[in-house]
Amino acid sequence: MSSGSVDIGYVPNEEQIIALLGQIQDWQINHGSLLKDVNSQTEHSSIYNELYMAIARDEEWLHDVTKELISTQPLANALWAIYRQSKAAGVVQEISAAIYRSDYMLHMNAKSSSPNDLSEATLKQVEFNTFSCAGASHAKRVADMHRYMTRTGAYNLESATEQHSDALSLPSNDNIESLASLLASAHAAYGAPKNKTAKRTAVLYIVQPHNFNIADERPIEYALWNRDPPVPTYRLNWGDDTLQHTSLTDTHELLFHPPGLAARDPLEVSVIYMRAGYEGHEYDHVGWQTRLRLEMSSAIKCPSILSHISTFKKVQQALTAPGELERFLSPEKAAVIRETFVMHYPLDQSAEGQLAREIVREGDCSNYILKPSLEGGGNNIYDRIPEFLRSIPAATWESYILMQRIQPPNSRNILMSPGGVEEGPVVSELGIFGACLWKQTGQKSEILHNSCAGWTFKSKHADIEEMSVVKGYGCFDTPMLK
Amino acid sequence: MSSGSVDIGYVPNEEQIIALLGQIQDWQINHGSLLKDVNSQTEHSSIYNELYMAIARDEEWLHDVTKELISTQPLANALWAIYRQSKAAGVVQEISAAIYRSDYMLHMNAKSSSPNDLSEATLKQVEFNTFSCAGASHAKRVADMHRYMTRTGAYNLESATEQHSDALSLPSNDNIESLASLLASAHAAYGAPKNKTAKRTAVLYIVQPHNFNIADERPIEYALWNRDPPVPTYRLNWGDDTLQHTSLTDTHELLFHPPGLAARDPLEVSVIYMRAGYEGHEYDHVGWQTRLRLEMSSAIKCPSILSHISTFKKVQQALTAPGELERFLSPEKAAVIRETFVMHYPLDQSAEGQLAREIVREGDCSNYILKPSLEGGGNNIYDRIPEFLRSIPAATWESYILMQRIQPPNSRNILMSPGGVEEGPVVSELGIFGACLWKQTGQKSEILHNSCAGWTFKSKHADIEEMSVVKGYGCFDTPMLK
Repeated sequence: MSSGSVDIGYVPNEEQIIALLGQIQDWQINHGSLLKDVNSQTEHSSIYNELYMAIARDEEWLHDVTKELISTQPLANALWAIYRQSKAAGVVQEISAAIYRSDYMLHMNAKSSSPNDLSEATLKQVEFNTFSCAGASHAKRVADMHRYMTRTGAYNLESATEQHSDALSLPSNDNIESLASLLASAHAAYGAPKNKTAKRTAVLYIVQPHNFNIADERPIEYALWNRDPPVPTYRLNWGDDTLQHTSLTDTHELLFHPPGLAARDPLEVSVIYMRAGYEGHEYDHVGWQTRLRLEMSSAIKCPSILSHISTFKKVQQALTAPGELERFLSPEKAAVIRETFVMHYPLDQSAEGQLAREIVREGDCSNYILKPSLEGGGNNIYDRIPEFLRSIPAATWESYILMQRIQPPNSRNILMSPGGVEEGPVVSELGIFGACLWKQTGQKSEILHNSCAGWTFKSKHADIEEMSVVKGYGCFDTPMLK
Repeated sequence: MSSGSVDIGYVPNEEQIIALLGQIQDWQINHGSLLKDVNSQTEHSSIYNELYMAIARDEEWLHDVTKELISTQPLANALWAIYRQSKAAGVVQEISAAIYRSDYMLHMNAKSSSPNDLSEATLKQVEFNTFSCAGASHAKRVADMHRYMTRTGAYNLESATEQHSDALSLPSNDNIESLASLLASAHAAYGAPKNKTAKRTAVLYIVQPHNFNIADERPIEYALWNRDPPVPTYRLNWGDDTLQHTSLTDTHELLFHPPGLAARDPLEVSVIYMRAGYEGHEYDHVGWQTRLRLEMSSAIKCPSILSHISTFKKVQQALTAPGELERFLSPEKAAVIRETFVMHYPLDQSAEGQLAREIVREGDCSNYILKPSLEGGGNNIYDRIPEFLRSIPAATWESYILMQRIQPPNSRNILMSPGGVEEGPVVSELGIFGACLWKQTGQKSEILHNSCAGWTFKSKHADIEEMSVVKGYGCFDTPMLK
């Protein structure tokens, strides 16, 4: 649950908590909310979108930055090989779509004289996600729930008799509509079917089989069907299901053959929305063929394979090196973005790599986190980093990035998770969705759409390292704006 | 599930059913739909509202019709006694609100030469509900789900490639907004707090403890909180909970003291929305005191106690007697209503009662149903009616009504219920919600609001007698309009 990111100065007693739980459970059952995730559509959010669109257009730089990963990381190898193979078959779609999520935490300078004075806090980027960005639906539902709970006075805030104004300080969240709107724009940009056997076009949603997170994926699909006119949207599982129910024409159209139930005529795929294919183990022979078929097609990909590669942690680290941001952005915009960076070091043979090795050798890494070069979120090493590195072959050190640890301010709150209901200090993470559509014709590039598309907000107990909601550590949450 | 009330001419195979079930389960999980329910806002619906508003103003007639039940039926006794006691304390609120639900089935004349020619079918009333009318939320969700499924072409209807027009022939259902709108109007009609200790007014929702049907009740509450400005709505369990957290002032205002969590100041209750207190066993000492406190107050009741009494099956039977409808309606309107009647007989000493006894003596009651005089829906006797009556004391026969059996046409469909997924002939029942607000000043009465407020639609296998969704016999459904 968690009632906001600011100390509410109120610890409910057991009876009150039981009453709150009943109210929350009813709301969740009524809104299909099976989990639990700021509205600060700041300037740098749109610049981040611009930056990553530019990176996805710069194959040379992207390859240069990530090429060391190809030999050791099957996912990096698969993505680059599939990209090359589909490029060799001819670039067939000039338009790309992307849904981004940039994650931030507040950071307190450790040398600050008043470590809980929020006016000294700055927003630092945790990671930038370009592929299969999740959490939008849960975040919207939790925001709606907290707004409802606040209106009812359930949190007994100072102004409980003036609940209306209180609810207004909890921001609303239009992320589902915004993401559906981007996919609808991409669908419209694709235009009429090119293949004469197809009478209609449709968005194709590629998902992981046996997906338990349908409550996060499906609402975007429903929002597309609910538009007027509806945007036909179908889903296929990554792998055999996709290979069986799609075909590629000689002229590169991707046709979707509905499994048994729907129209007999195939539909032509306008937009491929990827929510699968981001883990190395998905690229067995069938997985590889799946991604290749999708990439070979003239459908608009959300995201393109180069956008997918730009999600690697290695890219985030490369951008922190002096002068790199200026390759993609004006000096003014680069300065805004750089304000959100913390230090990132590679563990390679470069000058920055030597610095990182020096930090590790000194043995105190408490201000750092070790992250795999490929991923945004998981499999981080928080403690005993020198010991961990000494335990693995030195040749694999290059697969990791040493990232400065963000020091977020604490607030007190109550979190409701599978582990129970517990009060204590919590820290929060803000995700800002970006929705982008752009066109690249030869060397000419045109941004068709670049907007902030809502947010996610997650809180976890301050003594827990990982923010994963799926693993039960973090909770979706809503910030209270002052 | 059930895809519509008309034969869709399509029996899916097992693989197709499995695919449909997955799609349906995802939709239900995402929309808090835990169960499974025609837009025909016909002229007689509004006249029915007018009729039952007039009945609720006619204490004398209502008492005359139901007085025989007082000695044998604890609920009838309790309601009349509480009404008298609160009336003796002074009539303190001139405005009444009501949410009605009139249930209909299509009826085929048994002598018809073509028993499945729907053009010969007429709409007959099953029952009229005035108290705690349920099903609105489920009905809306199932309609939304069937519209979504149809748009996707999942039912493979003739025009599957033109899903948009298909979805349009499935009516939308605005019942939750309409019912919330009535309660909001009643809340506004109550005006500012009269008691100086209360700064605000609020709607009070009285519910049964341990309620499992929150997915039907809560959406109306959420819709009230979602209005701009929000209508504060709180809920209390019938019984001790209500007695503990409300108080009656000397000037008849009902104050609500929020349990622990919300504002410290009491709220003044503007509208009491009753979803409890309709079963005899609820009227123990505490239950009796609960209803009495609510009735003694100046809050607007939804419904009033006289409206509650008008829900008795006995009233429906009394209205079928010659001339009775004309007491409340113009001859033209009475004729429209009478068209929806089937025969109802009391089992008392009246001339009509003698007719009923004659029918029972003849032994063939296959065209009749025996219903308790007090209830709308449950505890009906469908078979072996003469044998049943001979098994109970003759003095208790007056507690029953003999009702002509409606003979609905069958259609083929697939129903999804806790018992499994089964294809076969089904029959359907249409419920039309009415939303009414009226003011009675002395002999002068004024209708402030009278509208149709959406619908429910339920289907069951033709060989099952009872339409109960809660018991797993019926399914919420959506009619396809041609």
